[in-house]
Amino acid sequence: MQAAPSIQKLLDELERLPGIGPKSAQRIAYYILNTSTDAALELSRAIEDVKSTVSFCTVCFNYAQEAVCEICASEKRDHSLICVVSEPRDIPPIERTGVFDGVYHVLGGALSPMEGIGPEELRIKELMARLADEDIEEVVIATDPNIEGETTAAYLARLISPLGITVTRPASGLPVGGDLEFADEVTLGRAIEERRPVR
Amino acid sequence: MQAAPSIQKLLDELERLPGIGPKSAQRIAYYILNTSTDAALELSRAIEDVKSTVSFCTVCFNYAQEAVCEICASEKRDHSLICVVSEPRDIPPIERTGVFDGVYHVLGGALSPMEGIGPEELRIKELMARLADEDIEEVVIATDPNIEGETTAAYLARLISPLGITVTRPASGLPVGGDLEFADEVTLGRAIEERRPVR
Repeated sequence: MQAAPSIQKLLDELERLPGIGPKSAQRIAYYILNTSTDAALELSRAIEDVKSTVSFCTVCFNYAQEAVCEICASEKRDHSLICVVSEPRDIPPIERTGVFDGVYHVLGGALSPMEGIGPEELRIKELMARLADEDIEEVVIATDPNIEGETTAAYLARLISPLGITVTRPASGLPVGGDLEFADEVTLGRAIEERRPVR
Repeated sequence: MQAAPSIQKLLDELERLPGIGPKSAQRIAYYILNTSTDAALELSRAIEDVKSTVSFCTVCFNYAQEAVCEICASEKRDHSLICVVSEPRDIPPIERTGVFDGVYHVLGGALSPMEGIGPEELRIKELMARLADEDIEEVVIATDPNIEGETTAAYLARLISPLGITVTRPASGLPVGGDLEFADEVTLGRAIEERRPVR
């Protein structure tokens, strides 16, 4: 027998979320049913608030609650250093490393002829405008280390290098703490090619 | 740098859900940010609806949108057969087996002297009232096969058996499709003790 209609509706909606299968959806739905109404409404309101208050930073196209995001607005950041990423979700992991103090530029995807995503579909024009207007010394192209990401990085490097701006890419290599034995051959090959002197 | 306040609030709320860690929360938050406002509001409304429309069935204490849940209200179910479970979340897995056509009774927990949960904290009085008023032939006690569940089952069996009602418990044994080699020794021991003739 089916669950009550509103429970079934909640299950359906939860199953749409990434990484949530039928069992996780059920676990979460019963948690919501079992918790206080106030606690459940905190969640539903957080979803509504995020949709009504968050839009894109007009400078870097990260998600922002103001016209300009907190990173672009910060005087503590190095505004001559831009890290180019595909999506806003790529920014928090870079922030967590604590080693990058520049600003960002979100492309909104990566070049993919297969999916019909060309330079026009990405915020490349906006990036080039920033490079023309601001005093930029280095652009780190942190697109994903896959075919689309590498293609995008190569395309951008060809556009940006002639401007006399340093273009870099995060190093490829073995994950720290990983097992050499279990590294895939492409990663291990790249790590050996890009080997560095021990200091 | 922290995420925008409303994104951080959504992350915090998502991380409260069972089985959702920081990485899953981030994945879901970015999915919500990236999806249409309509799709996101479907989810927040489903949460609100479930809290405003769902309460407990007055007969079996399963979650229900009406005073009596669909199972208790159904004429297709065998109302002389009651399956006793600890929580509403135990009902869907039993329904999915398709082998049980009786009705349910939700205790709201299991006996646990450690956590101060005695018979008064569970809906045992309500169960005994049903057994007195209705024409019940069998009670299947499907509490969890752990200490609290077994204690509860033994307690209920002592109360119910004198009424001349058959009291049963789902069989313990090896999971179907599992490996005997990997079964824990208690389960394997129980499976051997409760061995059945091959027909």
